[in-house]
Amino acid sequence: MSAADAKAQKRQKFEAVFAKLRDELLEHFAAQGMPEDAQKWYRRNLEYNVPGGKLNRGLSVVDTVEILKGRSLTEDEYFKAALLGWCVELLQAFFLVSDDMMDQSITRRGQPCYYRVENVNLIAINDSFMLEMAIYYLIKSHFRSEPCYINLVELFLETTYQTEIGQLIDLITAPEDHVDLSKFSLQKHQLIVIYKTAYYSFYLPVALAMYMCGIPHASSGSSGTDPYALAKSILVPLGEYFQVQDDFLDFAGTPEQIGKVGTDIIDNKCSWCVNTALAQATPAQRAVLDANYGRKDAQAEARVKALYEEMGIRGIYEEYEEAAYKRIMGLIETIPETPVAKPGEVVLKREVFKSFLGKIYKRQK
Amino acid sequence: MSAADAKAQKRQKFEAVFAKLRDELLEHFAAQGMPEDAQKWYRRNLEYNVPGGKLNRGLSVVDTVEILKGRSLTEDEYFKAALLGWCVELLQAFFLVSDDMMDQSITRRGQPCYYRVENVNLIAINDSFMLEMAIYYLIKSHFRSEPCYINLVELFLETTYQTEIGQLIDLITAPEDHVDLSKFSLQKHQLIVIYKTAYYSFYLPVALAMYMCGIPHASSGSSGTDPYALAKSILVPLGEYFQVQDDFLDFAGTPEQIGKVGTDIIDNKCSWCVNTALAQATPAQRAVLDANYGRKDAQAEARVKALYEEMGIRGIYEEYEEAAYKRIMGLIETIPETPVAKPGEVVLKREVFKSFLGKIYKRQK
Repeated sequence: MSAADAKAQKRQKFEAVFAKLRDELLEHFAAQGMPEDAQKWYRRNLEYNVPGGKLNRGLSVVDTVEILKGRSLTEDEYFKAALLGWCVELLQAFFLVSDDMMDQSITRRGQPCYYRVENVNLIAINDSFMLEMAIYYLIKSHFRSEPCYINLVELFLETTYQTEIGQLIDLITAPEDHVDLSKFSLQKHQLIVIYKTAYYSFYLPVALAMYMCGIPHASSGSSGTDPYALAKSILVPLGEYFQVQDDFLDFAGTPEQIGKVGTDIIDNKCSWCVNTALAQATPAQRAVLDANYGRKDAQAEARVKALYEEMGIRGIYEEYEEAAYKRIMGLIETIPETPVAKPGEVVLKREVFKSFLGKIYKRQK
Repeated sequence: MSAADAKAQKRQKFEAVFAKLRDELLEHFAAQGMPEDAQKWYRRNLEYNVPGGKLNRGLSVVDTVEILKGRSLTEDEYFKAALLGWCVELLQAFFLVSDDMMDQSITRRGQPCYYRVENVNLIAINDSFMLEMAIYYLIKSHFRSEPCYINLVELFLETTYQTEIGQLIDLITAPEDHVDLSKFSLQKHQLIVIYKTAYYSFYLPVALAMYMCGIPHASSGSSGTDPYALAKSILVPLGEYFQVQDDFLDFAGTPEQIGKVGTDIIDNKCSWCVNTALAQATPAQRAVLDANYGRKDAQAEARVKALYEEMGIRGIYEEYEEAAYKRIMGLIETIPETPVAKPGEVVLKREVFKSFLGKIYKRQK
């Protein structure tokens, strides 16, 4: 079997779990006496918004559980890991449905944004809430009697709050209709990226897998580092690096590579590129940015792009990428290469993080 | 001290706790390195949306804890009960901010709806999420080590889901811009009211107080009724009765009584009044409703009101109210009048429910 076939098969197996979870949510909904039009509505909400993405976040829960256990999973283990993965996808769906409304976006994953579907409009706000609450219904229904239950719930709640805080900073720093580059800085960019993306996309899936495998927190008196704090200290920089790449590819990637036309400059996004340019701009270059960034105008966009080239953003990015890779590898290597585990005990492994870093390093899409 | 003074004092004491909780949320926010404009934004979100209502739901947590314990509270007990009360108010603020957007409402509590405040607009969506997440931050921060912690968290999550389900049914049954009375029925009205209002306004505050007082669930093998199921079986009908009153007062209350001009007819609301009229309308009366309900037109509204009078909605309401009162009293009286409690044990009391019913029965505002 080719690598592409194996990947497609893995995706299919994961998608089959979504069908089960969707049915479970709809059965619970129907069992409470909800009318048929509402059942149809909730089904469309789930089907339109939850599957259909790249599923990287959800699949990474399953991958991490497999790496941590060091063996293939039993059917029940697979189902539970995939359920947690789908909960990450539900959280993301909640964010995307509401973000698209706040940004007044037009399309998402090659189809109209959900709020633009006929008759949906502002009801999408409440529908996004229901995607969020589906997470806790599913976790309760399958993990209630497990020791990790409260940890899973708290982790989702805390991560949700962090992501919303990141979204707030982003929204007030870079409103689409009011350009003020004095609000931007690489420091602000880092804060937004960590809160808005890194926690839920990188730390959340790994920490869920760790809880599911029963990895305990270090007791406060012990000498060792808490494994969750250790994982966070690697995954937050990793998520930051991932988002910097994303920002760079929005500028430098071809539509064939990234599957879309980048619009960060036109949309006044607080991107790594503009913040890097701002950090070293001469007064004349700064004036070009002030006059052209965030304008709904292809010529203004072209002037910003030309300035990026002139300032050597590509080279700066290459240096950033090498440094980020080395720094994160250094962090990963603080984990013992052959960790000592008692029989039946699951401990953190370098491979969890190397697997993420391997997928990200020098990606072109 | 007059009753009005005592009420004002009680409210002030409760409001003082809000100031503490707001500061706690803002300190945690600032401690994460959030920029000053974001701190100001979050503060305004909390202050604009959380206090300023009637606070009935929040205060009822404190009242219920006092009734259950049968004595005045220590300072720490008062603070914790009030904290849970403010969490109910935070949940309500989350719903109101988002409902006002979905309904495109103009004012709330005598001021512009939050999304209509300058520069807020669609950012109100994310701000409503942050009000929701503040609940779990506060509960974790103050109840993490208590046995009831997971019960409190689960109760808030479940109640949130129920309310959102009620909101969905309401939104698709009674869209403001598309009148279709064939979707209405008294049964649909009951479903909406129970899910959208009764759970979070009546069951939630009492169940929070019960958990805080350590009232245990009946173990599955025991013969007695679960006290939470018992409380729900009384509070859900009570909440239903409360909302029917609200619907009736929207039609029959004077602006002096209800503090606003009723707009349910114009807004195509799935109100108890229209459902009661539909249930007994002749074909001619039904035609009047079809032609005039939900129209942005004062004459159409007047025709619906005249029909309500002609059909004797006032009398039907009086009968409904008497029957509801008797039925709920009957439910309350299934609780032993002098419950047997071991020393230190807290058990459910009739007074909890009688206190609610007394405040609601024959209310005019």
